[in-house]
Amino acid sequence: MIKAGIIGATGYAGQELTKLLNKHPKVIIEFLSSNSYSGKPFSEIYPHFIGIIDKVLISTDDALKKIPDIDVLFTALPHGTAFDFVKKAFDSGIKVIDLGADFRLNDIETFENWYKTKHTAKDLLEKAVYGLPELWKDNIKGSQIIANPGCYTTASILALAPALKLKLIDAETIIVDAKSGVTGAGRKADIPLLFSECGESVKAYGIASHRHTPEIEQELSKMYGSKVQITFTPHLIPMQKGILSTCYAQIAGSYSKEEIHQLYKDFYKDAPFVRIREDYLETRFVKDTNYCDISIWTDKRTNRLIVTSALDNLVKGASGQAVQNMNIVFGFDEKEGLC
Amino acid sequence: MIKAGIIGATGYAGQELTKLLNKHPKVIIEFLSSNSYSGKPFSEIYPHFIGIIDKVLISTDDALKKIPDIDVLFTALPHGTAFDFVKKAFDSGIKVIDLGADFRLNDIETFENWYKTKHTAKDLLEKAVYGLPELWKDNIKGSQIIANPGCYTTASILALAPALKLKLIDAETIIVDAKSGVTGAGRKADIPLLFSECGESVKAYGIASHRHTPEIEQELSKMYGSKVQITFTPHLIPMQKGILSTCYAQIAGSYSKEEIHQLYKDFYKDAPFVRIREDYLETRFVKDTNYCDISIWTDKRTNRLIVTSALDNLVKGASGQAVQNMNIVFGFDEKEGLC
Amino acid sequence: MIKAGIIGATGYAGQELTKLLNKHPKVIIEFLSSNSYSGKPFSEIYPHFIGIIDKVLISTDDALKKIPDIDVLFTALPHGTAFDFVKKAFDSGIKVIDLGADFRLNDIETFENWYKTKHTAKDLLEKAVYGLPELWKDNIKGSQIIANPGCYTTASILALAPALKLKLIDAETIIVDAKSGVTGAGRKADIPLLFSECGESVKAYGIASHRHTPEIEQELSKMYGSKVQITFTPHLIPMQKGILSTCYAQIAGSYSKEEIHQLYKDFYKDAPFVRIREDYLETRFVKDTNYCDISIWTDKRTNRLIVTSALDNLVKGASGQAVQNMNIVFGFDEKEGLC
Amino acid sequence: MIKAGIIGATGYAGQELTKLLNKHPKVIIEFLSSNSYSGKPFSEIYPHFIGIIDKVLISTDDALKKIPDIDVLFTALPHGTAFDFVKKAFDSGIKVIDLGADFRLNDIETFENWYKTKHTAKDLLEKAVYGLPELWKDNIKGSQIIANPGCYTTASILALAPALKLKLIDAETIIVDAKSGVTGAGRKADIPLLFSECGESVKAYGIASHRHTPEIEQELSKMYGSKVQITFTPHLIPMQKGILSTCYAQIAGSYSKEEIHQLYKDFYKDAPFVRIREDYLETRFVKDTNYCDISIWTDKRTNRLIVTSALDNLVKGASGQAVQNMNIVFGFDEKEGLC
Repeated sequence: MIKAGIIGATGYAGQELTKLLNKHPKVIIEFLSSNSYSGKPFSEIYPHFIGIIDKVLISTDDALKKIPDIDVLFTALPHGTAFDFVKKAFDSGIKVIDLGADFRLNDIETFENWYKTKHTAKDLLEKAVYGLPELWKDNIKGSQIIANPGCYTTASILALAPALKLKLIDAETIIVDAKSGVTGAGRKADIPLLFSECGESVKAYGIASHRHTPEIEQELSKMYGSKVQITFTPHLIPMQKGILSTCYAQIAGSYSKEEIHQLYKDFYKDAPFVRIREDYLETRFVKDTNYCDISIWTDKRTNRLIVTSALDNLVKGASGQAVQNMNIVFGFDEKEGLC
Repeated sequence: MIKAGIIGATGYAGQELTKLLNKHPKVIIEFLSSNSYSGKPFSEIYPHFIGIIDKVLISTDDALKKIPDIDVLFTALPHGTAFDFVKKAFDSGIKVIDLGADFRLNDIETFENWYKTKHTAKDLLEKAVYGLPELWKDNIKGSQIIANPGCYTTASILALAPALKLKLIDAETIIVDAKSGVTGAGRKADIPLLFSECGESVKAYGIASHRHTPEIEQELSKMYGSKVQITFTPHLIPMQKGILSTCYAQIAGSYSKEEIHQLYKDFYKDAPFVRIREDYLETRFVKDTNYCDISIWTDKRTNRLIVTSALDNLVKGASGQAVQNMNIVFGFDEKEGLC
Repeated sequence: MIKAGIIGATGYAGQELTKLLNKHPKVIIEFLSSNSYSGKPFSEIYPHFIGIIDKVLISTDDALKKIPDIDVLFTALPHGTAFDFVKKAFDSGIKVIDLGADFRLNDIETFENWYKTKHTAKDLLEKAVYGLPELWKDNIKGSQIIANPGCYTTASILALAPALKLKLIDAETIIVDAKSGVTGAGRKADIPLLFSECGESVKAYGIASHRHTPEIEQELSKMYGSKVQITFTPHLIPMQKGILSTCYAQIAGSYSKEEIHQLYKDFYKDAPFVRIREDYLETRFVKDTNYCDISIWTDKRTNRLIVTSALDNLVKGASGQAVQNMNIVFGFDEKEGLC
Repeated sequence: MIKAGIIGATGYAGQELTKLLNKHPKVIIEFLSSNSYSGKPFSEIYPHFIGIIDKVLISTDDALKKIPDIDVLFTALPHGTAFDFVKKAFDSGIKVIDLGADFRLNDIETFENWYKTKHTAKDLLEKAVYGLPELWKDNIKGSQIIANPGCYTTASILALAPALKLKLIDAETIIVDAKSGVTGAGRKADIPLLFSECGESVKAYGIASHRHTPEIEQELSKMYGSKVQITFTPHLIPMQKGILSTCYAQIAGSYSKEEIHQLYKDFYKDAPFVRIREDYLETRFVKDTNYCDISIWTDKRTNRLIVTSALDNLVKGASGQAVQNMNIVFGFDEKEGLC
């Protein structure tokens, strides 16, 4: 049994993580912290867990002090606010899995340009590994700081990694058109996120400017072996959970749908949470699971590859992936506590 | 006052058309027909209209006989089933506006390939005009057969027509990623369209094979002056009405977002139902209206144009456009009876 | 043509009212005011109306000064904040229709108990008429201050008024169980109103304590001729617009469903916006209309009457009713500008 | 480990049951049967389970033959179709848990009147126990045939059982107003269940005639000690899962909210899946769990008790309860495999 602490337990990702860790057979939750709700039971904020997780939320200050007592720290915080917690964990020799954006981009400048904020833990940046297990499992095993990928990012990278690694596509032609449920925007009291506003409607937003863009590009570039730039367009659609990513690129040479399908199956043969599917994907098929479903399509008339991927933004796109990373780091079965 | 008849009044497009015509100050509805519900009042199928449109639905056989008594016929039928009605109207010297697909494709072979059905009114095909008023208003004025465009099609063509006409983009790089509400699939008792199935989920479907593809290509090719092929991906999202089309293409040369925005405004300066917007679009802003909103975005890093367009699939994407066409044909104000 | 001003134009009721008045053939909108958005065009807050209602919102201070220039003032404000505007209108000899709660309760004490706020316009209270046209049309005609009923209230009173007036039920056994869409809670940035929270869920709230209770009781008591007390339970359900009210009471004596149905039809024979229906009601059938649908059911086994009523909370439950009242006050056709 | 078979595995309740049993640590699924989909893998109908439950569905004929090989049979079938399977199981000495309605009503006549169908297993009826563990745990333990309660029924009976058992209310004044998500209507290709129809709308249906009425009355009568008749009104609301039941009755004598709350807590002190809550309930708090939340309210002005209860119609309202019953029958921990 290992002891875990969660900082930022009452956001949507934090809540889903709390739920998963609470059921995990090898984990004891040592503390849950929240800035807004400290002093209250977790189950008061999320009454789903009355009688199940009634642990009282502590302040982040108290959480900071308790870091040395645990085996693994999870931070689920807005960008630019996890630096101190990660430092403290690192200095205490504790493993830390950051669900936020602060350690995902290897390049400081890229981080500061896209996030418009100073990075105050540069020295730790090179010690962090990008926690996408399907690509970096070995690195994750030995690392102390895991930068858990974003939701759009996980869907998009997993959809395109094999095609770039295997040079199946022209890297200059990549377009990612992604559709997300509303929990992806977080638990914020904002007018545009009201049921009365975003219900029965769809919108594109963050066009050519969304912060997940450089993260996707960084990982795709590693796969490809040289710099990849993409166009990424997120959309908000009227559902609570789920992301569908529709990715387009020109096929480099000639590959059939069946060939590419097989190459993807081979690429992910050791990835227990990737399902290469033959049919159309629907986000409901991965809801509340840690799966990322992927399906391959070709447009013969234009020689284009279309890859769709689907995941639950709060599970494989956040907390499920964090648990998967924890499992790997601690030598547990990768699927332990996940479904 | 003109007299109108509707064949297929109880599908979603037919219902919306009935509603619009009933309020139109220059139209009397002479008959409403339905195969499934003939003999019943329209308001029994759509109780919204109790006390408002209680007219009894007639059979399509009876409708066929009544065609000579009216001034304009609307057909809102599944593809491959409007031929006889359009013929009868044409032979009777009656204007006909077909909301289905039977007269939209100028090329018989293309029709028969994509729709897998025989076209039995080839002679009338060349007499039909593609009823997208923003592009073909003058032709519509003098025509007797109007092929009213599809919903995905209207959104996509209006989004890309100026860019192709003005050669702002590389025509070989066009990708259209469209998102539609569920009424777009029609009023069919199909398991996948149940609230319990398609709620809280999103899917892509008809990838590289949807029948609106050749229709979009036909019109974009006319704009461009030579053959255009695109990749078109429709998506089903959990809302009832609305389409958002996100269109991508490489910019040919260098144009700023502002320049393209202005060129679009100029292009559509006489189109009362196109709004060139500066902000992100949401389908709710055009719901229950005949507007098609368009906004222009550029991705400088990849020199790509992203055009988004939004409309109500049952209004500007079907029945509103049909009324707009009727207004043009009969010399009414183009906006009469529409909002 | 009459000139109208709206104070509180950017709440959901205010917006729907603006939309209705803008289309009304006998009204010119003289001003729209908003505390939060003054100085901005109305269409910036509601982009639906770009090119349609671009009028710049003025401050409530400026609105107050302009009251003498108009013929009718609409106030759509939170309770306890309309007093000054109504006074100013009254003193200026201007008709005023208040969509809020400040003038609905005839009894000051009841108001102050339920709303926990001081009433600062007691003298005007007795000059105000309760603006439910189906019951008080004649009084409305001659009145200068119209207290426009609430949404739950309209649905519930119309459902029960005939039964009480005609003594069909035991007045001590009335239970009203109402279900409302989320716009009923207003346009507030509250966590519980987020799509991610109130989607896919239902709750009862305000049990035995909702402020619409004394309003319903006041009107039912007038119908009955003596004091009526009810149990009223509102519910929030995951849709944007609409209220369904399910009302229960013991039948006093023996009446069949058919008899009561006929008595209701007779009672509302001059009410153009009440439809006594024979089938199950659905709120979608009255959406975006000023109708209140009512249907009658009996439970023979328990000798109980069950009356269901359905309306659009923002139209017949707020702004449509306000327009209906305006039509009556100014001698227009009661249905003018409404559907 | 026990071996289980499911007949009717592809309806919504059957699917949820399959999911639960597949995870249950003490159960092996021996067979899954389906009339519509036999020969196909379960995961083809529900792609959620690709790689998880790929078992091929067998026909009901084949299932019938396999009954002797298992330890427990679950039947999840439309009413009137489970008789033969239950007989076969009974005759084979196999425990059977019927999720349908065929063995819930003790009185044949009542069954035949409300279900308009002949009961062809009368002799087994008296051997069946009504499988609501919170009331009949001891009987369930020793029984071979368990009639698993319906969804509306479970919510309503649990809400009212203590009040009747303890004579807190006047039994002649009970009204149950229940709100259900759309999965409650089953997986049927019906127009009224389409997203485009029942989305954004609410309706009452089955007023004074719903088949769950006699089932609720039977159990409440047992609690009360003499015949209880109620008025029951179900409503369909636009969400997928969940039931909220709002129950009304006159308080017999004088009890405070706090007293009744405490009496309910005592009544359910050994019921691990009932949570007596102090706040407003929301169905999302019990979604995907086997909990039934209950909260107590009083209307002092009218001396009425209002009890609300919330559950997941497919879990505590169907398959979760079936697993709970199985756990009891086989002496497992009542909570095993449930959450």
